[in-house]
Amino acid sequence: MIVPVILSGGAGTRLWPISTSETPKQFQPLIGDGDMFRQTLARVIDRARFAPPLIVCGPAHVAHVEADIAAAGIADATIIVEPAARNTAPAITLAALAGDPDATLLVMPADHLMTDVAAFHRAINAALPAVEAGALATFGIAPSHPETGYGYIASGDIIAPGVCHVRRFVEKPPRDKAEAMLAEGGHYWNAGIFLMRADRFLAELDRQQPPIGRACAGAMATARRDGALIHPDEDAFLSSPSQSVDYAVMEGAKQLVVVPVDPGWSDVGGWAALYELADKDDAGNVRMGEVVALDARGNYLRADGGKRLAVVGVSNLIVVTLGNDVLIIPRARAQEVKSIVEYLAATSPD
Amino acid sequence: MIVPVILSGGAGTRLWPISTSETPKQFQPLIGDGDMFRQTLARVIDRARFAPPLIVCGPAHVAHVEADIAAAGIADATIIVEPAARNTAPAITLAALAGDPDATLLVMPADHLMTDVAAFHRAINAALPAVEAGALATFGIAPSHPETGYGYIASGDIIAPGVCHVRRFVEKPPRDKAEAMLAEGGHYWNAGIFLMRADRFLAELDRQQPPIGRACAGAMATARRDGALIHPDEDAFLSSPSQSVDYAVMEGAKQLVVVPVDPGWSDVGGWAALYELADKDDAGNVRMGEVVALDARGNYLRADGGKRLAVVGVSNLIVVTLGNDVLIIPRARAQEVKSIVEYLAATSPD
Repeated sequence: MIVPVILSGGAGTRLWPISTSETPKQFQPLIGDGDMFRQTLARVIDRARFAPPLIVCGPAHVAHVEADIAAAGIADATIIVEPAARNTAPAITLAALAGDPDATLLVMPADHLMTDVAAFHRAINAALPAVEAGALATFGIAPSHPETGYGYIASGDIIAPGVCHVRRFVEKPPRDKAEAMLAEGGHYWNAGIFLMRADRFLAELDRQQPPIGRACAGAMATARRDGALIHPDEDAFLSSPSQSVDYAVMEGAKQLVVVPVDPGWSDVGGWAALYELADKDDAGNVRMGEVVALDARGNYLRADGGKRLAVVGVSNLIVVTLGNDVLIIPRARAQEVKSIVEYLAATSPD
Repeated sequence: MIVPVILSGGAGTRLWPISTSETPKQFQPLIGDGDMFRQTLARVIDRARFAPPLIVCGPAHVAHVEADIAAAGIADATIIVEPAARNTAPAITLAALAGDPDATLLVMPADHLMTDVAAFHRAINAALPAVEAGALATFGIAPSHPETGYGYIASGDIIAPGVCHVRRFVEKPPRDKAEAMLAEGGHYWNAGIFLMRADRFLAELDRQQPPIGRACAGAMATARRDGALIHPDEDAFLSSPSQSVDYAVMEGAKQLVVVPVDPGWSDVGGWAALYELADKDDAGNVRMGEVVALDARGNYLRADGGKRLAVVGVSNLIVVTLGNDVLIIPRARAQEVKSIVEYLAATSPD
């Protein structure tokens, strides 16, 4: 049995106003059926293949997680409540310590889109023999374009059908380097999705970053259990360094394999990405909610419940209403929504 | 004493969503202090010069009128409630029949801006001798640009300081004709503002359009009085032709004079006009309400109470939020807001 570990951390600012620190994007319906967390749960809900999920989230998001779990009809999930955000290495370590050391963990961010779940399942099957033999497996997403916003994984020798050694990790590349990797082939996006035995992960962690293992072991030894919730000890956990799993474990792991896969993946990393993913009308407009668009082209137009959005003669804009907020930004500049979030934080009366 | 007659008809579509049939633009704060109706009241509130005002409005707007009158501290206004809209000639006729036949009426639309009220008062003073001698006086607004959206008045001989005969009325002109009139001089915008004795107006009306006079006289003869409200008889009033006062009376009047004036006038005829009138920041943005504008230029950005409007990298847009509605339209196309109102009316479930 594979234990799904869903990492529900992070509070992206790139999808403001939909995504906020209170309700980050995994709890918002963005694309596909239901919110991104629900979609992640659905990917691993088959009990013939997957054990009950283990979710790692912050205290502010427990209610969202519980609601989504209940809505998915899952009664036996476990929720590890991180006392504070310490990046992915400590989060995965808590999960690895929470159950059977022999368990095989499928680690997934909570806020990614996959339109071809069958392809993902096939990749898991391909990875399993190597993982059972002790490897840490990372899933490498077949790149569709020379994205400069992701890290890449360069694959090496094929060691089994659909499984390769990892030659090296590549930091977020400049455009020309990304184009060269695409042209060369054998390079995949690092999506932060892993399959590995808990004991093997913990052994690699202890070898490379013993302070993280010590802090998390301490936090779990005195954890408070409250129904489905596990509350690791705050003081112990806060003593852990804050590190990404890539940096702390994967890049230096002895037995690391990459499993190339093309599961129709997106990290839905901003409004422009959402525009590309969504259904459009004949004029290239995405329309969500009550929208009137006259002589308008190429816009992402999203009105939340009860609102009415009327546009005339505008092109290639992102327009999003949510509650009291209205965002207007050109699609080509959609990443600059961060500057609004920063401005609002800097000018907030709080 | 001059009796102010404020015509609060019309339900412009050019300032949607602020202006609607329920709350047309005269009851909205657009520019200046308070809503346009309040500003119109304030123009004629000096009891040394003006009698209590007489307001003509439709049934749907009585509550708005009463609220504005109360807020202005006016306790002795009279409100004539038109049973239906029949354009300006019947509306003015009701007002002329409501009081003393010797009264001098100052007829004004309720939704115009004047930034130089003193100039307007001087023009009234200039007009008074001719009006007392029997003339109908129309105020001609000194044109600031070759506007094609207004009718013009061509002035003739000067008959007194600041008072001229009317040579002719000019329908809304094409651009080249408007430019020629500006170059020639002696042409003024017809703003629908008049000064005249009630009996002289009624005499001209009866001479030119007796059916209007008959219908309105019948409607007032059996009018129902309810405190400050006068309810003309509906059946009688509905028998009146629907005509503008220009067409029914002014264009054919025997003793018509024009009083040129430059009172900083605007009919606030659309969002582009409002943009021009309003205060702007260094980047040429009008900001009303809670607005965050980053790298944005030349926009009219209006967030209603409680809303927060955040824009990045957009130029020369009109963005207006009101209640559940959000409008986005380029300034240069602002008159096309009508097409939204028409679209909404055509697709309304009602």
